[in-house]
Amino acid sequence: MFQSFEVLARPDQGPGRLADLRAELARAGLQGYLVPRADAHQGEYVAPRDDRLAWLTGFTGSAGFCVVLEDIAGVFVDGRYRVQVVEQVATCFTPVDWPEVKPGAWIRDHLNSGRIGFDPWLYTVGQIEELQKALDGSGVTLVPGDNLIDRIWPDQPAPPMAPVRAHPIEFAGEPHGDKRARLAAELSKAGHSAAVLTLPDSIAWLLNIRGADIPRNPLAHGFAVLHADASVALFMADAKLEAVRGHLGPDVQQHDPQDFLPYLATVDAPVQLDKGSVPVAVRQTLDDAGIAIHWGPEPCALPKARKNAAEVAGMVEAHLRDGAAVSQFLAWFDDNATSGITEIDAVTTLEDCRRASNALLDISFDTISGTGPHGAIMHYRVTEESNRTLARGDLLVLDSGGQYQDGTTDITRTLPVGDMGTEERTAFTRVLQGMIAVSRLRWPKGLAGSHIEAIGRLPLWMAGQDFDHGLGHGVGAYLCVHEGPQRLSRVSDVPLEPGMILSNEPGYYRPGAFGIRIENLIVVENAPALPGGDDHREMLQFTTLTYAPIDRRLIMHDLLSPQERDWIDAYHAECRARLSARLDDQTRIWLERATAPL
Amino acid sequence: MFQSFEVLARPDQGPGRLADLRAELARAGLQGYLVPRADAHQGEYVAPRDDRLAWLTGFTGSAGFCVVLEDIAGVFVDGRYRVQVVEQVATCFTPVDWPEVKPGAWIRDHLNSGRIGFDPWLYTVGQIEELQKALDGSGVTLVPGDNLIDRIWPDQPAPPMAPVRAHPIEFAGEPHGDKRARLAAELSKAGHSAAVLTLPDSIAWLLNIRGADIPRNPLAHGFAVLHADASVALFMADAKLEAVRGHLGPDVQQHDPQDFLPYLATVDAPVQLDKGSVPVAVRQTLDDAGIAIHWGPEPCALPKARKNAAEVAGMVEAHLRDGAAVSQFLAWFDDNATSGITEIDAVTTLEDCRRASNALLDISFDTISGTGPHGAIMHYRVTEESNRTLARGDLLVLDSGGQYQDGTTDITRTLPVGDMGTEERTAFTRVLQGMIAVSRLRWPKGLAGSHIEAIGRLPLWMAGQDFDHGLGHGVGAYLCVHEGPQRLSRVSDVPLEPGMILSNEPGYYRPGAFGIRIENLIVVENAPALPGGDDHREMLQFTTLTYAPIDRRLIMHDLLSPQERDWIDAYHAECRARLSARLDDQTRIWLERATAPL
Repeated sequence: MFQSFEVLARPDQGPGRLADLRAELARAGLQGYLVPRADAHQGEYVAPRDDRLAWLTGFTGSAGFCVVLEDIAGVFVDGRYRVQVVEQVATCFTPVDWPEVKPGAWIRDHLNSGRIGFDPWLYTVGQIEELQKALDGSGVTLVPGDNLIDRIWPDQPAPPMAPVRAHPIEFAGEPHGDKRARLAAELSKAGHSAAVLTLPDSIAWLLNIRGADIPRNPLAHGFAVLHADASVALFMADAKLEAVRGHLGPDVQQHDPQDFLPYLATVDAPVQLDKGSVPVAVRQTLDDAGIAIHWGPEPCALPKARKNAAEVAGMVEAHLRDGAAVSQFLAWFDDNATSGITEIDAVTTLEDCRRASNALLDISFDTISGTGPHGAIMHYRVTEESNRTLARGDLLVLDSGGQYQDGTTDITRTLPVGDMGTEERTAFTRVLQGMIAVSRLRWPKGLAGSHIEAIGRLPLWMAGQDFDHGLGHGVGAYLCVHEGPQRLSRVSDVPLEPGMILSNEPGYYRPGAFGIRIENLIVVENAPALPGGDDHREMLQFTTLTYAPIDRRLIMHDLLSPQERDWIDAYHAECRARLSARLDDQTRIWLERATAPL
Repeated sequence: MFQSFEVLARPDQGPGRLADLRAELARAGLQGYLVPRADAHQGEYVAPRDDRLAWLTGFTGSAGFCVVLEDIAGVFVDGRYRVQVVEQVATCFTPVDWPEVKPGAWIRDHLNSGRIGFDPWLYTVGQIEELQKALDGSGVTLVPGDNLIDRIWPDQPAPPMAPVRAHPIEFAGEPHGDKRARLAAELSKAGHSAAVLTLPDSIAWLLNIRGADIPRNPLAHGFAVLHADASVALFMADAKLEAVRGHLGPDVQQHDPQDFLPYLATVDAPVQLDKGSVPVAVRQTLDDAGIAIHWGPEPCALPKARKNAAEVAGMVEAHLRDGAAVSQFLAWFDDNATSGITEIDAVTTLEDCRRASNALLDISFDTISGTGPHGAIMHYRVTEESNRTLARGDLLVLDSGGQYQDGTTDITRTLPVGDMGTEERTAFTRVLQGMIAVSRLRWPKGLAGSHIEAIGRLPLWMAGQDFDHGLGHGVGAYLCVHEGPQRLSRVSDVPLEPGMILSNEPGYYRPGAFGIRIENLIVVENAPALPGGDDHREMLQFTTLTYAPIDRRLIMHDLLSPQERDWIDAYHAECRARLSARLDDQTRIWLERATAPL
């Protein structure tokens, strides 16, 4: 079982560790210290060694940070984690509502002057610049230095050393030499001699490699420098690279991770850096060596987001395999929903169904399995303690995904336990209408997520409702389930382009009562011209990747337009056509019923 | 008649004037000169004296500029004016597609090094900073100096000197003393001693005055400095202010416009300036005097955009008066559309109908009256030469508005001449569906125009169609018909707030064939909670201000949803209820028919 249900919070250990840290502060002559959730690679998941925030505070959420001062320690968490943080941290920690309260303003409120330390590997240039700006004119300075948590963490785990594998060309679709040449040409055009890569999914994509250094994401920790001659200096532990030396070839020189900074100090100027991802330590090294920095985008971000035909084909196949597994689960669920099963039973059975494919390499994130009021907690993680038995009249929000060699999946279905009331079914139908509107959308080339996100919210808005998360995130191809830069979000100004894969996941949440979310993955493609009426502008559309039935019992037929009803019936017909051959007899019969026309 | 149909272009006069300008360049030691459309107040309309771009080049559009170099003179115009510019300018001018071609890049292509002159009154700080940045590293420098056009324009008209009137409190809703105190408190809070106002609609709003220095907009040219003690120094010709001395009172000191810059050189620092509106000359003066500048928003822009109850009430009344006039016109049109009338006949008859109210102070912009292929020219201005007789099977796009003391109107209706084909009716219906969707919209507080604009385009997008202008612009209350900062546009990030008035005007244009546009004005207001389903978030909605029938013969009933059909029927019922008492008997009978349920 990939997922664990262990209660991770250990509030009782926080006070002693905080005292140890403050002793270190005194020794270092600091008045404060920043403890982020992130590692040097700024990902959503971190290795146990890098889980410093949880180790210190007890808080295990995927985003947040702690600002430790001499007499207060603020744990900054966003709206998803306001309830969780209170349960997980001891009273010596003060939860802070972030981003409403900004760390700069909070520090100014609690510290007149002094030096606050931070580890320059764990903060990006952009993050520190922003915080520095917020502290401008105060007596507080930010001081890079050694990691003080590592000094007081006696049994800190070792860095992960999982072996790296080649990602077959059949799924990658483009040799890494071609990718390097493409990006190097861009560097040359911009007049840059090299670019620094510190995001492991960028390195994995560029070199067609995959690893296992952190849970849920097939990534290997490392750094890289891409030169304008298309060669790459890869800083990754030798022991991990055994299996890929031939694959990497002579133009990818392997170096010890220790040599990364000394190497940087010798590269030709100017070097392209991305403020949003590169650690302060990298900038310091280049500055100290007098090497000119040109700020630019992360060079792999957009090329990685534009999936090629092989990657899309792999994603299609992964989604059919995954959809069949989810259908097996849904059939089981229909038989057992009212027989006393729990949230954890749903997670384990769903993982078993995926494992039965013999192709599951990991789950793509910890399954969210929330029933009743837990469904309204958008990032609920069920534990042995929180586990709830499904009760008649409750909804179950089940948000899960798999990592397969050919692709990454992410699907949410909301399921009824027995008969449901009109309120839940009405809200479900509105969420569904938003999801259908996005699935059917055509739009002119050039627009970003911020310009079209409203389409997925409109049916809720018209009923005075909305939801407090983005409509969709980018998704990698056997990479991270959350991948930028494209998003269906009101803050995203990255134009959507063919090959970009996104989630389409409107929801509705009634705190303390129930939650609803429906999610398919979709891929952007060129829309064919329509007969008549076309005014010859280039338009885009989405193709749906996810196929698994949407619960018909939760749909209020009368609320649907004829076009919406047609979409559902056509979607379900596709589910039958694509999945039937992959199912056992019993599930196939179930699927017939579950996908009957409305 | 406010509108004229004169052919304004004089391409034949361009070459001589261009030669004169180049002689001045040589005398001044310049290799180029910038000639903008704008005056010192950056408005859409300019006084005849300030119409330098048209005088030099012959191009009469409302946006654009000319870059004169020694051997090429580029006339930069946007998509609306690509056809017009070719007809209006002589061959010594080269039309340039702007903003696709940026002036900085174009200058670099045509000039290796040299000095380009510009008038620091006619360019904003932001515009020159942007151009300067684009020229960075080239050998070209921008040099502020005297206006060279004024030197070679022998019969340049005098500055406008129309008398200024007080805008009654009944329509303004707030005494100017209160407005000044409100804004001054903001200045004090920000630590600024003063703000410079150079936009005439800001000054008109702040001091509750109106003028007549330029056509279509009830504005008086002038400058002002708002001090943190709520006093204002107003720089406006004494002769204009006869009627408002008592209204302005002792806290608004009148100064000669000549004294504006000397006065600026003496104000207390720091001074708040808006980069987007303040001329370079203002910045230069403050810099030369060593007075610190703090860049900030135009202080009147947002307060002016949030209309108070009196302003909204005035706009409602103005729209009923205007809607009655438009209905009189529509009834006349129905009787005469196929009897050989022309585009100009439509304009003059419509203006006559508005004049019959005895309340029309001006039209709010030159009426767009385009039939057949002219309908596809978004900013078509009919002239004696272009005037087209309406022909059966053509559509007429009629976009017009009035200036009344209580408000400003802007309405577009698309009208059939005889029976229309299915293609036009289908496109009309889709445009109408977008317009209805925006009219009916509810959305959560905090969103900007960019987040909801898609709603008005969706029905067209789904048919592979779109239109190349914004969905809507802000509108003033007896001020400019185009007023910022709010817009329904993909580039607008200004959150919509109660009291903001916008146009809702989707369209569809088939170049060379026909055009369609339907436009109502709408005002943002708080949306009441809906029974049930409300999750207690604050939502906003639009209330429609414009009432005049939408042509039922152009609507394809089968394409409408029940909600859309209900909206149209309810809108038409409101037209009857609100307008009937204002109409003559014959028009009232016509209105009954024109607003019958679908």
